[in-house]
Amino acid sequence: MLFDVFGTCVDWRTGVRRAAARHGLPPELADAWRAQYQPQLETVRSGARPWVNLDVLHRIGLNRVLDDLGLELGEAARAELTLAWHRLDPWLDVIEGLTRLKADYVIASCSNGHIAQSVALARYAGLPWDAILGAEIARAYKPDPAVYMRSVEALGLETADVMMVAAHNADLQAASALGLHTAFVARPAEHGPGQTTDLAPEGEYDVVVGDFVELASAL
Amino acid sequence: MLFDVFGTCVDWRTGVRRAAARHGLPPELADAWRAQYQPQLETVRSGARPWVNLDVLHRIGLNRVLDDLGLELGEAARAELTLAWHRLDPWLDVIEGLTRLKADYVIASCSNGHIAQSVALARYAGLPWDAILGAEIARAYKPDPAVYMRSVEALGLETADVMMVAAHNADLQAASALGLHTAFVARPAEHGPGQTTDLAPEGEYDVVVGDFVELASAL
Repeated sequence: MLFDVFGTCVDWRTGVRRAAARHGLPPELADAWRAQYQPQLETVRSGARPWVNLDVLHRIGLNRVLDDLGLELGEAARAELTLAWHRLDPWLDVIEGLTRLKADYVIASCSNGHIAQSVALARYAGLPWDAILGAEIARAYKPDPAVYMRSVEALGLETADVMMVAAHNADLQAASALGLHTAFVARPAEHGPGQTTDLAPEGEYDVVVGDFVELASAL
Repeated sequence: MLFDVFGTCVDWRTGVRRAAARHGLPPELADAWRAQYQPQLETVRSGARPWVNLDVLHRIGLNRVLDDLGLELGEAARAELTLAWHRLDPWLDVIEGLTRLKADYVIASCSNGHIAQSVALARYAGLPWDAILGAEIARAYKPDPAVYMRSVEALGLETADVMMVAAHNADLQAASALGLHTAFVARPAEHGPGQTTDLAPEGEYDVVVGDFVELASAL
């Protein structure tokens, strides 16, 4: 089983808002920063920029958002704040669900986060991965097929032997097109009270659940 | 902390002898098979063969050893026996030692085993890695410097921030030459009662211990 992490396993919005507050920055920084995420990934997916890790892309996005919002922050504080993405709390069902799933299945992260970030986050949040796969071993970013295929191959499996778990339709649609099984886990609070996207499945997924405990029970 | 696995964490000789017995093969198969290990790795290190994973190299070595010893074994049984390297018991100090070390340090495998093999072995033996690094992410085999350097880089660290732990002098000498810290763990039973190699440290290592519990206490 491969798992998306940001939004699916951990509540990045609360964690980043908390980190922003520690630097005297307003809470809206979190959503504005995350809005830079796909555009920055796209610079690598398009080939405009060679593969760099997510700390680099998060920092570029942060610099842009601070400019856009007219906020001041020193270099050291920008570097420290970028590490907010290494220290995020899991949704309350995640540890119980992953622990139950791990008894029967190999569980691995398949995130756009790099290995160092994923290790730090797993230790902080207690995510009990068997392996950290995803973007860095493919040197590509989801939904680039290379990320899913390299992760499946690293497990010595075929796509039909693997299930992708995510709270995002684009992620699951890409995995499904490659022949992976799919599980949609609703995370309606990921983007806060005004969330309008990924509230419901938009595809033919194998499993649709409300949290990871339900997922363990369903499997 | 990066850890060698075969011999350092797990007792490959007992496990492979047990698997050979299940196939009606004599115990000396294990040592003869392991004797094929470095020559097979060398075909990749020398560039004579493009990188292939350790299942492939173990299978080539097995075929050769069965020929040399004049032993018969069907194709399916050869494939199954090759997976003996995925199911090996840890030395008795390993789980306690790794669990204690993990409280204070990131612990990752840095083995010549590939990710699928390392995941299977970690689940079988209960090795609580934070990440599986080593040969596959570098597409090279130790003691090729690329394996250590890629593993250090994946952790977002410098070599001086990382300690290599192994029962083998060649592994530690290579790591030390790159600037990693080193810990020698004596495994005098790795090769059975007649062991003549790696009985003592042959280098200036930071730590020399008898097992992983001693290592945790020393650090």
